[in-house]
Amino acid sequence: MTESTRQNIQPDDLKNFCTAAMVKAGLSQEDAALSAHVFVTTDTWGTFTHGTRQIRGLMQNARRGRLVATAKEKIVADGPSWAIIDACDGMPPAISCRAVELAVAKARQSGMCYIGIRGSSHYGAAGFYANMIAENDMIGLSMCNVEPCMTVPGGKSRVLGTNPIAYAAPTGTDRTVMLDIATSAVAATKIFAAKNEGRDIPDTWLVDEDGVPTTDPTEFPEKGAQLPMAGHKGYGLAVLVELLTATLSGAAMMGSVQSWVADTDEPSNQGHAFVAIDVGAMMPLEEFHARMDAMCKEIKSASPAKGGTIFLPGEIEWNKREQALAEGIVMPEDVLISLRGLAEDSGLDPADFNLDLG
Amino acid sequence: MTESTRQNIQPDDLKNFCTAAMVKAGLSQEDAALSAHVFVTTDTWGTFTHGTRQIRGLMQNARRGRLVATAKEKIVADGPSWAIIDACDGMPPAISCRAVELAVAKARQSGMCYIGIRGSSHYGAAGFYANMIAENDMIGLSMCNVEPCMTVPGGKSRVLGTNPIAYAAPTGTDRTVMLDIATSAVAATKIFAAKNEGRDIPDTWLVDEDGVPTTDPTEFPEKGAQLPMAGHKGYGLAVLVELLTATLSGAAMMGSVQSWVADTDEPSNQGHAFVAIDVGAMMPLEEFHARMDAMCKEIKSASPAKGGTIFLPGEIEWNKREQALAEGIVMPEDVLISLRGLAEDSGLDPADFNLDLG
Repeated sequence: MTESTRQNIQPDDLKNFCTAAMVKAGLSQEDAALSAHVFVTTDTWGTFTHGTRQIRGLMQNARRGRLVATAKEKIVADGPSWAIIDACDGMPPAISCRAVELAVAKARQSGMCYIGIRGSSHYGAAGFYANMIAENDMIGLSMCNVEPCMTVPGGKSRVLGTNPIAYAAPTGTDRTVMLDIATSAVAATKIFAAKNEGRDIPDTWLVDEDGVPTTDPTEFPEKGAQLPMAGHKGYGLAVLVELLTATLSGAAMMGSVQSWVADTDEPSNQGHAFVAIDVGAMMPLEEFHARMDAMCKEIKSASPAKGGTIFLPGEIEWNKREQALAEGIVMPEDVLISLRGLAEDSGLDPADFNLDLG
Repeated sequence: MTESTRQNIQPDDLKNFCTAAMVKAGLSQEDAALSAHVFVTTDTWGTFTHGTRQIRGLMQNARRGRLVATAKEKIVADGPSWAIIDACDGMPPAISCRAVELAVAKARQSGMCYIGIRGSSHYGAAGFYANMIAENDMIGLSMCNVEPCMTVPGGKSRVLGTNPIAYAAPTGTDRTVMLDIATSAVAATKIFAAKNEGRDIPDTWLVDEDGVPTTDPTEFPEKGAQLPMAGHKGYGLAVLVELLTATLSGAAMMGSVQSWVADTDEPSNQGHAFVAIDVGAMMPLEEFHARMDAMCKEIKSASPAKGGTIFLPGEIEWNKREQALAEGIVMPEDVLISLRGLAEDSGLDPADFNLDLG
């Protein structure tokens, strides 16, 4: 992956193109526009693995019926501070945005809200939804279960997914404090990069087919399994994510999840979980913002290591977004390839959207 | 620390002794009995670092007025699914048990509940309270902020505490699924053990005074700082714990927390956070238990690594508790030393409680 030397991409142009492409695959204008907003925002943060690159695969699933382009989610059950939603195999980012709106509305009434979603698939970056909650001046959590790729301490087979967990908190500025992490030691893409470049990897990333930690990435993913972050700690947190996204929502658990990129007609039936906590109900909002500001200043004013720089959780993403909004997005080649494929699948000319995808 | 060869300690005898000792330091019978239950249960799990060993230090704080033995907590503000409580420097485990009861009662009405506590100090093992929530057939979370001992990526000074996070989920059996972890790479006790035994440590545990990762534990804790688990992931999670326990509750944040073991008259003003999610409101309880059972069976039936054994989160603790209830607790010497000191401080004879503390 090298940085493009092409004209930088304007987020609004990209949003219009992606929306049109998703409408071509059968999505409603509303679902397409919401989803484009999710994926383009993610690209502006520099989180390209979970941005517009993902749209082509989701629309391929829509064309084969694995994702039901016209499906509308249903509230299965709800109470003052919770809801369980069946996504009915509809478009995950659009459904997740509406679920977040419901979580915020319920939290505004009762102080906090949990929402569990079943019958979904890939919703992009968990952090987007946590941040959407924080934009409503609430503390937000967002989680998703994923098909197994990690083993657990003492094991060698694949047991749990990378099960991401994200949070965001409002600060009174346009920059939330936010974190979006997989509960695996690293993303699989880092292992593939080492494999392609012939490098060894740290022995905390992968076990071989006997379950022994290995520094050799060459046989993955055919053999071996990823390791959770920080051993039993990441294992336990991945189980917590499974609990809140799947066990409690009714989604497929662990080995029953179908990968959204697998060549099958089976729906993924992944689960999501959102939590919103209305800080303004519990403390005057100005006081909370002032306390966040004090916390952030204390972190930033810590003594740096030799040659080190301290970043707040999310600060690197906000810096990238600022640059992307000012100068356009510099897209990696793999994203451009995916977007060109999306244009082709959709019968759209990127030039009609002022886009130069190369 | 070597295993005792003394007669094993019966949990009920230990509870009676600890209750009496805390009453001698000025606590009410209720607060003393609740606290004894928390610490003795923690010992039965084998989590001796956070069990009855801690009582002596807390009672020393009570005698000097740093912990107010007769204080009663106040609900500062509350709503349908949340409450903020001021512990008023009272006895943390007793106040936390009552807070958990309130969280469960509110969650029973609205589906879920968040409780933030300020003005507290050391509450023992975070996992105890998560488990107490799970015993009420709810998913429980428990967190606490702690005085800084960890640096953050790019830094060298101490910024955040080990900020533990714990959860537990009901299974329909007497064994919950539970996890209780610090967000630091390891507990400081592991670094001290390596130092005492002249061993090197992995370079992910500690930085030296320049902020450079080191394998040499000899200058800690006078110099250097601990590292978060899994780098930026543990850093971000420690900030989440700080947010929910302190920023939102009004407790002291980060460097303003006074260590509960420091030689000062300043109160600690630590914060705690509890979350209870009433699963039975969202799904028939029997169905949730069956799904938990399926999840646990799938984990346990994974292929083990060569020579490996797979444990569920909390399984090791439940195994130890089963043995402790059957045969008594085999106490490490450091706990016995602390308990003998507590007997001395309290003017109590352990023999009056059928206890042989050596």
